[in-house]
Formats: sequence, C-alpha cells, structure tokens
Amino acid sequence: MKKVGTHLVVDAWQAPADLLNDPERIREGLLNAVKAGKATLIDMCVHQFSPHGVTATVTLAESHIAIHTWPEYGYFAADLFFCGKGEPKEAMKVLQAALGAKEAKIREIDRGFPEIYATHQATVKKLEELVSSTR
Amino acid sequence: MKKVGTHLVVDAWQAPADLLNDPERIREGLLNAVKAGKATLIDMCVHQFSPHGVTATVTLAESHIAIHTWPEYGYFAADLFFCGKGEPKEAMKVLQAALGAKEAKIREIDRGFPEIYATHQATVKKLEELVSSTR
Repeated sequence: MKKVGTHLVVDAWQAPADLLNDPERIREGLLNAVKAGKATLIDMCVHQFSPHGVTATVTLAESHIAIHTWPEYGYFAADLFFCGKGEPKEAMKVLQAALGAKEAKIREIDRGFPEIYATHQATVKKLEELVSSTR
Repeated sequence: MKKVGTHLVVDAWQAPADLLNDPERIREGLLNAVKAGKATLIDMCVHQFSPHGVTATVTLAESHIAIHTWPEYGYFAADLFFCGKGEPKEAMKVLQAALGAKEAKIREIDRGFPEIYATHQATVKKLEELVSSTR
C-alpha cells in the first residue's frame, strides 16, 4: 500500500454530559488538540444541536478532525486524519482529556491506495518521458 | 454494541487529476452527494492547496463528510459519517461519479459504544427514579 496518512477512528465513553454539551469547551479542546498534534488549522465549524449534542469539523493542512457528541450517552465519536506530518495520537490524548472520557476505543487505519497503482503511474510517466526525449 | 451511526471510510483512485484539483467541481459534487444521501447541510469548507490538492469538510445534521484529494496520484480519501438518518452509500456513489474514480475501497464501520455501558446507564437512571419516588 502507498500510504498517504494515518486515520484514528475513535469511540469514547464515560464522559460527563455537561462537557459533551459545551461547544466552547469543545472548541478549546480542539484548538489544544491541533496544537498538540503539531497541525495547522485552516477552518473550524462548531455546531450545537437542540436539545443536546455538539458537532465540530476542523479543516487542517494535514487533513481533518471531526467530533460528534451524544451527552445523553456520555459518548463521543472522533476522527483524526493526519497525512504525512503531525501527531494524531498526541492530539487525541488532549481531546480525550478535555472531554473527560474514561474509556476509548481507538482504531488506527492507514489511508492510501494499492502499491501496484503507484508503480503503474511511475511506469507510465517514465514511458512518456522516453517517448518525449526520442521525438 | 449500541450503534449511533454508519461510517464509510473510502479510498478511491484512477480519477482524473483535473477533477481532483477543481475546488468548484468538488463543492458541487459534495452538495449533490449531501442531497443524494438525504442529509442536511450545516456548513462546508473547501480549501485548495498549492501546488495541488483539495480538502473539504462538510458539517451535517447527520454528522460529516470529509474529502482530501491527491491529484498527482489520481487518488482521494473520503469519509462519510451518518448517524441515524440518511443514506451514506447513495452519497458516496454520487461523489465517486462526480470525481470519476474508477476504483474505490469502501470500508463500512459501525460507530458507537459497548452495549453493557448503555445497559448500565439505563440501570442507574432507573435506580435514581426509584430513590426519587420513595423519598
């Protein structure tokens, strides 16, 4: 596989409802997570639902972070997708601490495409250069 | 598991570089995907990188969609996280067609938390009600 990035798929629970329903707490937690992950912020959207729940998406130069909270369950889902640079695990530690989740299941997924496709692209490029040089 | 949503983790390749580097095409594709997925748009950020590549995050009432493109590889990574309502697979079909990817690996991940945690929460609530009614 030609890997372009690391994606942490996180389900976290046993978190206090009031923290999970506080958009400012979540915004601050995300900003600190971005800093801890050595990432570069491009944009952020934080949205509070009625009667409860917060969703936030963070656009990064390194890809994205997204979080969705269910205060009624003490649960949140988070995704931290970092290509190349950055430290998603450090970002996750900060986010989990900010929202006080005692338990978390973290799945690490490599993102990318089949190696043979990368090899094929490189071969095609070489052929094009060869054809171009012999013209 | 107490499931709160379905998450499609998508790696797609063999897509034309010009489509993957066109932020307006991607914005339009995402809007059509949201519509096809019967989702509700809250916010969208589309960002073009230099020299190439586009990142977009879409905040939905149902959760989020995110996409990151690597035109130099003819590759894009997409995430479609839909809680409860909506049809992420229909959204993905539209997005893949809009960006002309001939191949895609789609992983479907259930998001949520352990059933026992939900059971425990329900038990605590019942106990609280019982204590409250006997006071």
